[in-house]
Amino acid sequence: MTTGKIMLVGLGPGSVEHMSGRARAAIAEADTIIGYVTYIRLVADLVEGKEVVKKSMTEELDRAIEALDRAKQGKKVALISSGDAGVYGMAGPTFEVLFQAGWTPDSDIEVEIIPGASALNTCAALVGAPLTHDFCAISLSDLLTPWPAIARRLNAAAAADFVVALYNPKSGRRARQIVEAQRLFLAHRRPDTPVAIVKSAYRPKQRIEFTTLAAMTECEIGMLSTVLIGNSNTFVRDGLMVTPRGYANKYNVESGDTRDGEKAGRSLSTGLDGWFAAIRTSGETVDELARRHGLPTDYIAAVLADTSDDEPADADEDRVFHRSPCAPCGPSPRR
Amino acid sequence: MTTGKIMLVGLGPGSVEHMSGRARAAIAEADTIIGYVTYIRLVADLVEGKEVVKKSMTEELDRAIEALDRAKQGKKVALISSGDAGVYGMAGPTFEVLFQAGWTPDSDIEVEIIPGASALNTCAALVGAPLTHDFCAISLSDLLTPWPAIARRLNAAAAADFVVALYNPKSGRRARQIVEAQRLFLAHRRPDTPVAIVKSAYRPKQRIEFTTLAAMTECEIGMLSTVLIGNSNTFVRDGLMVTPRGYANKYNVESGDTRDGEKAGRSLSTGLDGWFAAIRTSGETVDELARRHGLPTDYIAAVLADTSDDEPADADEDRVFHRSPCAPCGPSPRR
Repeated sequence: MTTGKIMLVGLGPGSVEHMSGRARAAIAEADTIIGYVTYIRLVADLVEGKEVVKKSMTEELDRAIEALDRAKQGKKVALISSGDAGVYGMAGPTFEVLFQAGWTPDSDIEVEIIPGASALNTCAALVGAPLTHDFCAISLSDLLTPWPAIARRLNAAAAADFVVALYNPKSGRRARQIVEAQRLFLAHRRPDTPVAIVKSAYRPKQRIEFTTLAAMTECEIGMLSTVLIGNSNTFVRDGLMVTPRGYANKYNVESGDTRDGEKAGRSLSTGLDGWFAAIRTSGETVDELARRHGLPTDYIAAVLADTSDDEPADADEDRVFHRSPCAPCGPSPRR
Repeated sequence: MTTGKIMLVGLGPGSVEHMSGRARAAIAEADTIIGYVTYIRLVADLVEGKEVVKKSMTEELDRAIEALDRAKQGKKVALISSGDAGVYGMAGPTFEVLFQAGWTPDSDIEVEIIPGASALNTCAALVGAPLTHDFCAISLSDLLTPWPAIARRLNAAAAADFVVALYNPKSGRRARQIVEAQRLFLAHRRPDTPVAIVKSAYRPKQRIEFTTLAAMTECEIGMLSTVLIGNSNTFVRDGLMVTPRGYANKYNVESGDTRDGEKAGRSLSTGLDGWFAAIRTSGETVDELARRHGLPTDYIAAVLADTSDDEPADADEDRVFHRSPCAPCGPSPRR
């Protein structure tokens, strides 16, 4: 019996030197390469002599269906995505198609996902260090997602001060979504919040622009652009966009010495334990605390009612790890 | 005059085959390798004959200061991070130290960031396709971030139905943060929301567990673990965790045919234009619409007041792109 294989390959940004060794090997191993025509072009040198199936941008399900057909014939198929195959890439639709067709991991078709650096990683590397703190990826495409779901995420990310990478920010037919994103952000963030727009990262037509939240809709943004919106601490200096990790909360950055009241390698004085202690002795009501800290009243009430954390912070390292075996946890996948 | 160089290298998951060609070349090019001892061990074969400076986990600023010292002497220094150097990695603290020391990109020390697949990409690749829709990365470490800031982000991500990757979920001294994260999520998500815990992805001690939001705190979680929490549509089937992209909103996944009322390649009927039209003709008040859609009243009011989108949806592709030059956008960095 022949065994087929589907390899979901993340190319990284698209320059061959930024591909992983495993991604190159997967393409070399494949009989058939399936992908969006632009991505096929990025790896043209690697696919000579192979069957190449080029698809247009919206034909993700067709690509997965074609991959399954070839794999059923015993072929090794590389389904290629730019960036990471798992981040808005082909991994999801492929499993949807496979499950629909009754495929299981025990069948004679093997599936391997080969991760790559996604657009948020590669665009960040080109502009400085914007992702040094918590971040979100949000796609502005409403081709498959209702607008209220997208708007709720934009609003939540803006309010909670995430750095945000906008994928699929704008196309010929979708010019208004980025304007709505800006509107939602401006309700929570300063107009001069730094924004970087990166087009075709690490490709010949690479273009990087720095702008602000207030001005970003005036800039050239297209389907090959990723928009990075900083958090409230992000700054641009000398052409570099940097989100501080927070070292200045604890250390003198020049000398490396610890600030008064803080200990190297330990939680901040305003970390979880310190914060618990502070709110319990604050004398403020649940509502006052909820407002001050921007958290739900239910959460504040639950924290105040819970005394289970009253144990020494310097507990033995081993003690607080879970004792295996771990009954509620399911089995690992077979791969 | 000698010219030094600092290369911020993202190793990817840590297996040599998943490193990019550029990351390997950067290490080969370097005179000095600086990194956390565990990461140095991952690339032991590549660093023979070079100066190697091993640091413990909390010495990020020391690593950056040492890199700067060597680069001032004209050395080429590779500062290595696992995953991506920009995602909670060394890129941020390095720029903080460089700026503090008066460095500019015009100086005789060059800085290059080499992106890699971050833990969220590589852990996702091992468990299936959990990141096919919008996601957040949140670090539970309160060593540099006040707990209320972390809690606000957890609450926002849970409420807005993001897939979430928790970095630094637990350590010997920080056992309670994951319990608080669970508490915040359970206020918004079903107890049986799928959760995957991946430890040491693509390394010899790799371990993958599937569990649920309600049970995840019973599982083994440590500093080498990443916790992936699904959104409300994420499912686990046959040992694979998949977040649907939403193709079923528009297509029959088996045949690829479009559903009634939807068009291939166009926004959903509940996309931005369709939603605008629906809320304008709904007869509901701003408050009712805000409640129904989970959005701020200010946003609903602004949308209802704004008629600037009243233009044909099928406009020419070229027309809606911005005409350059783009005055409000700043210059590109020099790199």
